[in-house]
Amino acid sequence: MSSSDIFIGETIGTAILILLGGGVCAAVTLKASKARNAGWLAITFGWGFAVLTAVYTSAPLSGAHLNPAVTLAIAIKDDAWSNVLTYWSGQLLGAMIGAALVWVAYYGQFHAHLTDREIVGGPGAQDTKSVEAREAKAGPVLGIFSTGPEVRVAWQNLATEIIGTVVLVLAVLTQGLNDSGKGLGTLGALITALVVVSIGLSLGGPTGYAINPARDLGPRIVHALLPLPNKGGSDWSYAWIPVVGPLIGGAIAAGLYNVAFA
Amino acid sequence: MSSSDIFIGETIGTAILILLGGGVCAAVTLKASKARNAGWLAITFGWGFAVLTAVYTSAPLSGAHLNPAVTLAIAIKDDAWSNVLTYWSGQLLGAMIGAALVWVAYYGQFHAHLTDREIVGGPGAQDTKSVEAREAKAGPVLGIFSTGPEVRVAWQNLATEIIGTVVLVLAVLTQGLNDSGKGLGTLGALITALVVVSIGLSLGGPTGYAINPARDLGPRIVHALLPLPNKGGSDWSYAWIPVVGPLIGGAIAAGLYNVAFA
Amino acid sequence: MSSSDIFIGETIGTAILILLGGGVCAAVTLKASKARNAGWLAITFGWGFAVLTAVYTSAPLSGAHLNPAVTLAIAIKDDAWSNVLTYWSGQLLGAMIGAALVWVAYYGQFHAHLTDREIVGGPGAQDTKSVEAREAKAGPVLGIFSTGPEVRVAWQNLATEIIGTVVLVLAVLTQGLNDSGKGLGTLGALITALVVVSIGLSLGGPTGYAINPARDLGPRIVHALLPLPNKGGSDWSYAWIPVVGPLIGGAIAAGLYNVAFA
Amino acid sequence: MSSSDIFIGETIGTAILILLGGGVCAAVTLKASKARNAGWLAITFGWGFAVLTAVYTSAPLSGAHLNPAVTLAIAIKDDAWSNVLTYWSGQLLGAMIGAALVWVAYYGQFHAHLTDREIVGGPGAQDTKSVEAREAKAGPVLGIFSTGPEVRVAWQNLATEIIGTVVLVLAVLTQGLNDSGKGLGTLGALITALVVVSIGLSLGGPTGYAINPARDLGPRIVHALLPLPNKGGSDWSYAWIPVVGPLIGGAIAAGLYNVAFA
Repeated sequence: MSSSDIFIGETIGTAILILLGGGVCAAVTLKASKARNAGWLAITFGWGFAVLTAVYTSAPLSGAHLNPAVTLAIAIKDDAWSNVLTYWSGQLLGAMIGAALVWVAYYGQFHAHLTDREIVGGPGAQDTKSVEAREAKAGPVLGIFSTGPEVRVAWQNLATEIIGTVVLVLAVLTQGLNDSGKGLGTLGALITALVVVSIGLSLGGPTGYAINPARDLGPRIVHALLPLPNKGGSDWSYAWIPVVGPLIGGAIAAGLYNVAFA
Repeated sequence: MSSSDIFIGETIGTAILILLGGGVCAAVTLKASKARNAGWLAITFGWGFAVLTAVYTSAPLSGAHLNPAVTLAIAIKDDAWSNVLTYWSGQLLGAMIGAALVWVAYYGQFHAHLTDREIVGGPGAQDTKSVEAREAKAGPVLGIFSTGPEVRVAWQNLATEIIGTVVLVLAVLTQGLNDSGKGLGTLGALITALVVVSIGLSLGGPTGYAINPARDLGPRIVHALLPLPNKGGSDWSYAWIPVVGPLIGGAIAAGLYNVAFA
Repeated sequence: MSSSDIFIGETIGTAILILLGGGVCAAVTLKASKARNAGWLAITFGWGFAVLTAVYTSAPLSGAHLNPAVTLAIAIKDDAWSNVLTYWSGQLLGAMIGAALVWVAYYGQFHAHLTDREIVGGPGAQDTKSVEAREAKAGPVLGIFSTGPEVRVAWQNLATEIIGTVVLVLAVLTQGLNDSGKGLGTLGALITALVVVSIGLSLGGPTGYAINPARDLGPRIVHALLPLPNKGGSDWSYAWIPVVGPLIGGAIAAGLYNVAFA
Repeated sequence: MSSSDIFIGETIGTAILILLGGGVCAAVTLKASKARNAGWLAITFGWGFAVLTAVYTSAPLSGAHLNPAVTLAIAIKDDAWSNVLTYWSGQLLGAMIGAALVWVAYYGQFHAHLTDREIVGGPGAQDTKSVEAREAKAGPVLGIFSTGPEVRVAWQNLATEIIGTVVLVLAVLTQGLNDSGKGLGTLGALITALVVVSIGLSLGGPTGYAINPARDLGPRIVHALLPLPNKGGSDWSYAWIPVVGPLIGGAIAAGLYNVAFA
C-alpha cells in the first residue's frame, strides 16, 4: 500500500465511520428525527454497522485501521512504525469530516432541537440528576459528537476505556490467525462490526465506549468549531481519557498478543 | 446476462424489496397488526433484510441492482450504458408490483386503520405537531409507500439523500475489490443488507432514507392509484427529491470510486 | 441420503425449530418469564435464529427442509417425489415433539400464567377488542403453539400466507444458484434465517406468518392434547389456512423458479 | 494444541466471555449506566456477541470450548479425556477473572446502585412479588454475576438448563459436518453466537440460560468474595442446578450425536 492510498483510505473510511456513528447518535437524540428515542440497541447496532460499512469500503485502500489504537497495536505487533503518522493523520481528518457531515445531514434537526428550550439528555441518560450535571458542564448535543462518563471518576473511566479497547484490538489482531492471513476481508469486517456491537452493549454503559482516540477527538474539535446555538461546552477536561485510554489498551493488547498468540 | 433476464430479475427483485420494505412499514403503522408500534429498529432491520432477500433471490438473474442509482453508478464506473433503461424499467415496474402486494397482504389492516377516525402518525413520528402538519399535506398512510421529510427544507432533504446514497453505492462498488471480483454473491448480499440497516439507523432520521428512486417513485404512483378511503394526498411536491438526490449520490460515488479506488 | 437419515434429520430439526420458535412466544407471553413483553423484534429474531439453529443442526442428515412447503417445492422443481412422505412425517412428528418440549421448559410459567385470572393477549395484540374476540374463540395461550389472524378474513389470511411462503421458498430455491450448488451449508442456513426474520417483520403482522404447515398443525394438535387449565379452544376453524396457504405458496414459487430461473 | 495453549486460550476466552456477558447484565441493570433498562433483546444479543468475541479470539489457541459442558461432550464424542481438566480449570479461572473485570469496568455504577436504597430487580423481572422474594434470598446484583430462576421448581429449572444445553452442544458438534471439519473458524464463531442468542430468546425466560457451568459458578464465587455493600446472598442453594444441568445436557447431546449423526 502506498502512503497516499493509506491516507485516502483512512480519511474516507473514518469519515464514513463517524458520519454513520455520529449519525445514529443524532438520529436517536434530536427532535424531529424519525428515529428519536429508538434506544440503546439502536445506538450500539448503529455504531457496529458503521464500523462494518467503513471497514468494508476502505479496506481495499488502507487495510481499514480507522482507529489510532489499532494502528499502534499493529505497529507494536510487527515492530513496523513507518506508516503510523500517515494512518493517524488520515484518521483524525476523516473523523472531523464525518462529524461535519452529520451536521449537514441533520441540519434542520439540530436547529429544531437547540432552539427549543426543553432540553433533553443524551440517549440512555435516565438519571435526571446526572444528566443535568453533565449538561451544565458539557452541553446537550455534545453526546452526538464525543463520549462522556455517567459517573466522573477518572481512574474508572480510564480503566473502562482500556478494557474495552483491549477486547477490540485482541479480536482485530487474531483475525490473521482465523482467516488464513488474508487480513480484513468481508468476513473480517463483519466480525469486527459485531465485536463493536458487543463492546457497546457490554462495556458502553459507563463512558460511552470511545475505544478510539480519533472517534472522540475529531468530533470534539468539530463541536468546538461549529456555529451551533446553545451548544454548551466541549468538555475538554475529559478529552484526554478517550485518547489515552484506548492507546494504552491497544498497547496492552499487542503485548498480550505477542506473549500468548504469536 | 440477457436483456430479458435483466428485466425479469430486476422486476422480481425490486418487487420483493418493496413488498418486504413497504410491508414492515405497514406492519408497524397499521391497526390490527401484530407488529404495531414495534419501533424504528424493526423498520430499519426490516428494510435491511428486505434488501438481503431481494438481492439474494434476483442476483443470479440480473446481478441485483434493484436501484436506479446503483445502475447509474455502475454505468459511470464501467462507462457501459446499453442496459441502463432495461434495468430502470424493471426496477420501476417491480416497485409498483411490490407496493400493490403490500396492499393485498395488509388489506384488512388498511381497512381497519383508514376507517378509524383516530389517525396515527408514521413510525418514529413522536412530534405531534410535525405529524399533523404532514398529514394535512400527505395523508396518514403515505409513509407505508413513500418517504417524507420530518423538517421540510429542500436543500437539506436533498443533501441527506445524496449523503446516504454515496455511502450505499461506495459499499456496493467496493464489493468487487473485497470479494475477488465475484460480484454480488451470498456474502455480498449480507453486507449490502447490513449497510442499508446502517444507513437507516444513522441517516434515516431526517427524510426516511429513500436512497433509491424506484423505491420511492413506484410506490408513490401506486398510492395515487389505489382505491383507499381517507388516504390523503401523495405529496407530489416532495417526489422529486428522493429521485434526484439518490441519482446525484450514485454519480458522486462512482466518480469518487474512479478517482480513489480504481 | 437414506430414508432413515431423512426421517431422523427432519424430526430432530423440526423439533428444534418448534422448541425455539414456540419457546420465544412462551418467553414473551407468559408471566414469570424474564423475557416477558420483550416485543415483536424478539419474536421475529427468535423465530429466525430458531431456523438457523434447526437448519444448521439437521442439514448434514436430511438437507434441512423442516417445512412441508419447502419439500413440495423441491419435489416440483426436480420432479422427484419418492421422499416426500418421509420428509412430511418427520416434520409433523418433530413439530409435535418441539411443542411438547416448550411445555416442559416453561412448565412453571404456564402454570403461573393460566391460573392467574388476569388474562393477557398474545404478543403484539395491542387492540383490546380483537384480543378479547380471539380469546373467546381460541384461548389465551394458543398463540404460543399456533398462528391466528388479527383480522379474520379467509381470502386475505390465505393470500398473506401464500405471499410470505413464495418469498421464503424462492430464497431457498435460489440457494443452489448463489452457493455453487453446495446446498444448505453454513451460509445458506444464515441467509435462510435472516429471510425468515424479514418475512416476520414485513409480512407477519396480519396472520403471524405460519409459512409452514408443520409449524402450525403439529403444535395445534399438541395444544389440543395437553392438560393445561383454562387453555381455551384450539381454533380448528382457522387451522386449514396455515396448511393450505403455504403449500400453494410453495407450488407457486417452484413454478416461478422453473419458468424464470431454471 | 499444547496444554499451556489450551489453558491460556480457555482462560483468556472465558474471561472475555464473562466480561462481556456479565457486562451487558451490569449495563442494563445498574444505575448511572447509559444502557439502563435496554431490555431483554440487549441482554440476549449482548451474550451472543460475547460468545462471538470470546470464541473468535481464543479459537486459535485452544479451539474455544469456553464451557465445561462443551468440553465434556467433545470428550464423550471422541472418547478422548486427557485434556478435560486443563480445559475445565482454564474455564473456571477465566470466568472468575471476567467477573472481576466487570466489577472494575462498572465500579462507579455498582457504587451508585448499591448505596441507593430504592433497589431494582434484575433485567426482565417484571413481577414485583417474585423480585422481592428473590432479593430477600439472593440480593439485588447477583443477576449480574449468576443466573437464577423466576419460578423456583428444581426439576423444571434443571430440565430447562438441560434442554438449552442440548440445543447448544448439538449445534457445536455438527459444526464439523457443516464446515468441512475445519473446526471453529470465523463462520463457526458467528453461528455459535447466533445459536446462543436463539437459546437466550427462546429458552432463557425461566432460568436465565446458564447452559455453562463455568459461566455460572465462577462469577458466583466472585460475587461471594467481592466487597460490595448491600450485595445480598449468593444463593448457593440454587448453584448446583446451572452446574449439573448443563453437564447432563452436554452428555445427552454427545450421545444423540454419536447415535444419529456419526
